[in-house]
Order: sequence, then C-alpha cells, then structure tokens
Amino acid sequence: MNSRSEDVYADQGFGQDLEIVSPLALLVVDFQNGFVDPAVFGGGNAAEAAAKAKGLLALAREHGWPVAYSRCVYADDRSDANVFTEKIPSSYVLTENAPESQIVDSLAPMEGELVVRKQFPSAFFGTTLASWLARQGVKTVVVAGATTSGCIRASVVDAMCHGFIPLVVEDCVGDRSVAQHDANLFDMKMKYAAVKTFDEMKELDAVKQ
Amino acid sequence: MNSRSEDVYADQGFGQDLEIVSPLALLVVDFQNGFVDPAVFGGGNAAEAAAKAKGLLALAREHGWPVAYSRCVYADDRSDANVFTEKIPSSYVLTENAPESQIVDSLAPMEGELVVRKQFPSAFFGTTLASWLARQGVKTVVVAGATTSGCIRASVVDAMCHGFIPLVVEDCVGDRSVAQHDANLFDMKMKYAAVKTFDEMKELDAVKQ
Amino acid sequence: MNSRSEDVYADQGFGQDLEIVSPLALLVVDFQNGFVDPAVFGGGNAAEAAAKAKGLLALAREHGWPVAYSRCVYADDRSDANVFTEKIPSSYVLTENAPESQIVDSLAPMEGELVVRKQFPSAFFGTTLASWLARQGVKTVVVAGATTSGCIRASVVDAMCHGFIPLVVEDCVGDRSVAQHDANLFDMKMKYAAVKTFDEMKELDAVKQ
Amino acid sequence: MNSRSEDVYADQGFGQDLEIVSPLALLVVDFQNGFVDPAVFGGGNAAEAAAKAKGLLALAREHGWPVAYSRCVYADDRSDANVFTEKIPSSYVLTENAPESQIVDSLAPMEGELVVRKQFPSAFFGTTLASWLARQGVKTVVVAGATTSGCIRASVVDAMCHGFIPLVVEDCVGDRSVAQHDANLFDMKMKYAAVKTFDEMKELDAVKQ
Repeated sequence: MNSRSEDVYADQGFGQDLEIVSPLALLVVDFQNGFVDPAVFGGGNAAEAAAKAKGLLALAREHGWPVAYSRCVYADDRSDANVFTEKIPSSYVLTENAPESQIVDSLAPMEGELVVRKQFPSAFFGTTLASWLARQGVKTVVVAGATTSGCIRASVVDAMCHGFIPLVVEDCVGDRSVAQHDANLFDMKMKYAAVKTFDEMKELDAVKQ
Repeated sequence: MNSRSEDVYADQGFGQDLEIVSPLALLVVDFQNGFVDPAVFGGGNAAEAAAKAKGLLALAREHGWPVAYSRCVYADDRSDANVFTEKIPSSYVLTENAPESQIVDSLAPMEGELVVRKQFPSAFFGTTLASWLARQGVKTVVVAGATTSGCIRASVVDAMCHGFIPLVVEDCVGDRSVAQHDANLFDMKMKYAAVKTFDEMKELDAVKQ
Repeated sequence: MNSRSEDVYADQGFGQDLEIVSPLALLVVDFQNGFVDPAVFGGGNAAEAAAKAKGLLALAREHGWPVAYSRCVYADDRSDANVFTEKIPSSYVLTENAPESQIVDSLAPMEGELVVRKQFPSAFFGTTLASWLARQGVKTVVVAGATTSGCIRASVVDAMCHGFIPLVVEDCVGDRSVAQHDANLFDMKMKYAAVKTFDEMKELDAVKQ
Repeated sequence: MNSRSEDVYADQGFGQDLEIVSPLALLVVDFQNGFVDPAVFGGGNAAEAAAKAKGLLALAREHGWPVAYSRCVYADDRSDANVFTEKIPSSYVLTENAPESQIVDSLAPMEGELVVRKQFPSAFFGTTLASWLARQGVKTVVVAGATTSGCIRASVVDAMCHGFIPLVVEDCVGDRSVAQHDANLFDMKMKYAAVKTFDEMKELDAVKQ
C-alpha cells in the first residue's frame, strides 16, 4: 500500500478510530507449533509475534479478561475435508494429537480458558466463540496470533460482524510474508479494527482501568 | 507481494488448484452506484470491473445459473449502526432509496434473481445467501463485484466456509486501490479460491458444458 | 404433557432456574397483522398476547432497553422461496407492502428500534440480530410475539445458542393452537428459557432496578 | 394436539408435502449412551428408536449417502458452560471420554463419516455440518436420533434454515416423554419437515433409485 492508497481511503471517509470499550477479552488465534515453525506454516515475523504475545497473555490474565484460543485441527480420517484443505493439503498435518497442532508451550491455555477447534480461517466459523463472548457481555476482542493475512484477518472481520470491537495488537500477530502482513494490517486499519502496538494498547483507558 | 512471498507459499504447500464443479451460480457483490463512483466509494479499477461484469452476467443467464446480488444498505434511522459503520461513517449514505445504494443499471437484477441486503462486508453474513445456494445444490460460486480488498474478499472467504468453491473472476472485481486489489487477489489465490480472468473462466469444462 | 413427563424431566435434572441478568433487551417476534388475524395465520390466544404486549413494550421503553422486532417478509417475485414456504405456501402473502406483513399498529416500532426481516422461523437466522444485541452487551432477551410453537420457539432456542438468556413472557406470546402453545412452553421451560408471566417478570430484580 | 388444532393448520395452508430430492444424507443426532439410558437422559421411546435406526444406517451406507453424527460434548473444565448447561446442569456428565457421551455401539461411526461435537441443541449450531452437507450438494437430510423434543427439533429447524429438506424418520427418533415426542412431530409435520416411518421412507422414489 502506497501513500496514494491512503489518500483515497482518507478522502472517502475510511479508517475512523474505534472507541475501545470494556469488558475486553483476549483471543489467541492459531498460535500452534506449526504456525511459528518456518518448516511448517511459520516464517516471517510469526515466531517473534508469539514471543511478544506472552506479555499480552499475562496482562489479560492479570486483568481477569476472558481468554479464548483457536486451534486449527482436522480429523485423522479427513472426513472433514473442505475447500480450504483442498487449497492447502499440507494442512492435514494438523490432527488432534500432532505436535504441529498443539498451542506453543509459552502460551498454553489454563483451566477455564476456552479452546475452540476450527477447520476454516475464522475462529468464529463453525465454533461457539461468538456465543461464548456474548454470554459474558464482552465488547472488545483483543486479537493476537497467526497468520495476519489468513486466520487473523478472517477472525477480525468476523469479530466485527458478530458485534465486537476488534483490537489487533500488531506486534502480537505475525505472518510468513511480511508484505502480506502489512497489506492486511492496512485493510483492517481502514475498515474493520483498531490496530495498536502492545505498548500503545497498554495505555488505553479501557485497559488501564 | 514479491517473489519471495510466493516462494514461501509454494514451499509450504499453498495455492493448489481447485477443481471447478457444476452446478455453478453467479454472485454479484455490491456493484452499486456508490462503489463504482470515485467520488463515493469507487475509483481504481472498480468501474472497469463493472463494465466487464456485463458479459459475465449475460453468460450466467444464458447458462441458466442461479444469480444472486448483494447490496450494502443501512436503515434510514441508523438503528442498525455497527462497528463497520463506526469505522466508515460515510457508509450511512447507503440507505434503501439512495441513488448510491442502487445496483448499477447495466447489471440490474431480473425477476427471480435473489437480492440480499447486508450491513457487513460478506454477502453471507446476516443474510440467507448460503441457504439459497445450498437449496439449489450449487457447488461453485463465481464472484464479481466490489471491492476486491473488502466485500469480495470477505464474501469469498465465507463462500468457502459455507462449503462452496469460490471462483473469482479477476477482471470482474475491482477496488479503489489497485495495490490492495493485487494483495488480496494473492491471498485468495494462495488460500481460498480459484482466480481466473473472464477469458480463462469461459474455457473451463464446467462452464462450457 | 402430563405430570409423568414433568417427573421424568425433574428426575434427570432439567428445568433449573436461570438467573436474569441485565442489561436486558426486548424482542418482539412477528407481531404482524397476519399473525393476529384468525383468517390469516392467527387465532387461539395470539390477539390476546399482542394486546398484552403493549404494556411490556411500554415498560421496555421506559427502562430504555434496546427494542428489536422481526417481521416475516418474502420477495414479491418469490426469488427467496425456501423449504419453509414450500411447507406453508400461504406465507407468500407476506410481501414487504402487504397489510398482513405490517407490524400491528399498537406495537409500531419507534425511530432507533431495530426491525429485521426474516424468511425463516428464528428472528436470528439470516439476520444481524445477534450481532446487534452483542454490540450493546445485552445479556437477557425478553421475548414476546407469535407464534409460540413456531417463531417464538425457534427464536428462543437461537437466543440461547447465541449466548443470551431468553426470558419468555408467557402471556405476551400466542399461538393459533393453545395445545401447541402449552407443549412448546413446557419444552422451553425445561430446556431453554426462563418462562414468566408479565406480572412475575415485573417483580424481577433485574427489571425493577 | 387434538383434531381442532389440525383443522386450524389445514385451513391456514400449513403442512404441505415436501418433495424429497436426492442427493440425500443421513444425520444421526445424539444417539449417545446417555440419551438412550433412562437413568441419564433417555427413557420413553428413545432406546427403541436407536434400535430401529440400525436399519436406517445400514440403508444409508448401502446407498453411499454421506453420513454425519452429532455428539453433545462439554469441556472437562466446563470452560464452555452456557445457558443450556445452566438450564440442565446434569449435562456436564457429557465430557469427551465419558461413557455417557459415546455414540451407542450399534450405530458406531465408520471411517470417513463426519462426527461433529456440539454444545447446543442443534447439530448445526457452532459446527461445520451445514458446510459439509453443502459441499457435497446434499438436498435432503434424513434425520434420526434423540431427543425428538430437543435436539431433533432444533436440528430439523436448522436443516431447513440452511437450505436442506429435512426428512424425519419418526420411528427412528425418540424422546423421554412420548407426549412431547408427539407434540413436536406435529409441529415439524405442519411447518418444517417431511415426517415418515422407516417403511414409508424406503418406498420414496428418491430412496429407491
């Protein structure tokens, strides 16, 4: 995205700020071993983002925010084959017990935190995540995970659709391609979400309170 | 996206071809006056894509494919305000009877074609589109419309999630920013959809039959 | 349902009380002319329920609760024909401008109240209702409308699925068949919702506050 | 439901026949040990329905129909607690590895058949079932399982909403309360589904072909 793009968007009224309102929840999307390992689906700034997300997770727990995780997981017998796996057949490695599909140790879920299994990009599609957030009256969903151009983007769009304010922590989301990471952050900033660094996020009133 | 990105994706197994299977349907996303007019939400290659889509629509009708349209429309009293309109308040111009919200004349729906009104990027969210396609046993959804980086991308991801094969006709989708158009076509090609020019599409077996 | 049924349900742990938690919203389902008119889809206790709902609507507005309505509406050209209309072809009378599809005068929506159009029993299916409620942090959805055995039951099940506590006001929901009204209230009381009379509801802490 | 109810429904145009169209799929809802055992959530005609469903499953496999199952399953740590479990806290027995949550031996899934885990009544809510059916171009969903007044009813309504023709095999669905079984079959027959005995179903053209 070049400066000319940004001008067009500004001229047409895009990219307004979203007010961040509590209660907040944290959503950790697909920070599974396979998505930080460059030999599987990782690379680019993904591992760096996972490392940074440790601080974000600690902050969320400290504040007592609801914490939800998604894992991309497919059936051992491939009975749940779909268009997404047809496009990326290497995804079948992500079976329930495969090392590649486990959440990275440093971000392991704690008792009482929700883990949804998904077969599509969005953490909301075919899961009970929106219902779980609504039941707790959550208004803002803070998003970390991988990959920015895939499951983050799809989850952010759906968070907005389901009535939540998406807050993307830009240094806690990563992608195998930094160019696509940037292009997708631009789209999200212009149309769907608040996009902040972890340091900026910590200074928000809704977070400090 | 540079060649380095493409290498990473290829190495990790992304971007496989999708077999295009009939029955097909055509989905025309948000080709409303406002999205082809550079003074509203248009610009870039949007008007050109709408012009090209005329031939695609004619082809679909000739073959008797189900044809569905989406229109982005908001309530006059803004009772349906949402995070998307908070991000882009200029969207409120798209009321039911505003000229900006009408489908462009050259692509006007015919009797029996479905028109869904939507308040979010995806033509599937908060609409009965997936249900309507499933009832007709549709397997492939051919997609035209605007904008590539917004409602096309979101509708393509959702078409895939709902079980349909998305076929994006790349010269029949447009965007105010050609850079974002390209970046989003790359993501769709790598992860979610078949991406073909109109000429390539016409040569597919599932289309010629 | 006889006393033997109730025993089975109690023995197996069904029918526990739900705590009613604010914020509350009011959902008025299909109180359209056609659903209170015995010559169309009304009859039984439907008209009586609509009359009673006037007080409930006044209470909701007094408390400043979000108020949403659903209308069952089909396209003039029947392009949105579905399995539900195939089962009940007389539904096609409910076009956008037909007198039968208008909300009854005594319950007419006010500016800022949401009206969703639907083509299926649940007010949530193919609409943005869940999103609209979530955005406002609503926790309990008070339900009135018609018919108990159809669109009320479906909307109540979906309210629960989407993360909201359904509170059915039993004298503000009606049905052409009182036997089916009773059978469905039993199911909802045992499995999905709090069921209270309007007078009982007014005494709840979450309402009085 | 008495004859007077049936008259009202007939007079208002309800209860038309649905044409059963192939391709068909079989959906087996919650035939888990706990739902046939009268000491857990079974009783009434549930066990009898499960016994009868064996023949239906054999027929489906013989014809090569896609077969899907739902299991009601909750997290060991109750992180997925919801309004449904608040209404029926005894549901928490249905953890992934509990004997009560396993599908009955006589109907055990085979490799390649889909099993979705659900936390709400409908086999479609929060699952990828509709997507899986759509991808295979399925038009009619044959439904067996438990309980008629709960997860069958909710799944049948949702099958219809998602664009599929529901065909309830009335002697292959069961309920702890026969009165509620009957009341719900009446609603489904009048508004949402074809309802046939197994013997009647076997004679349908779409099945015999």
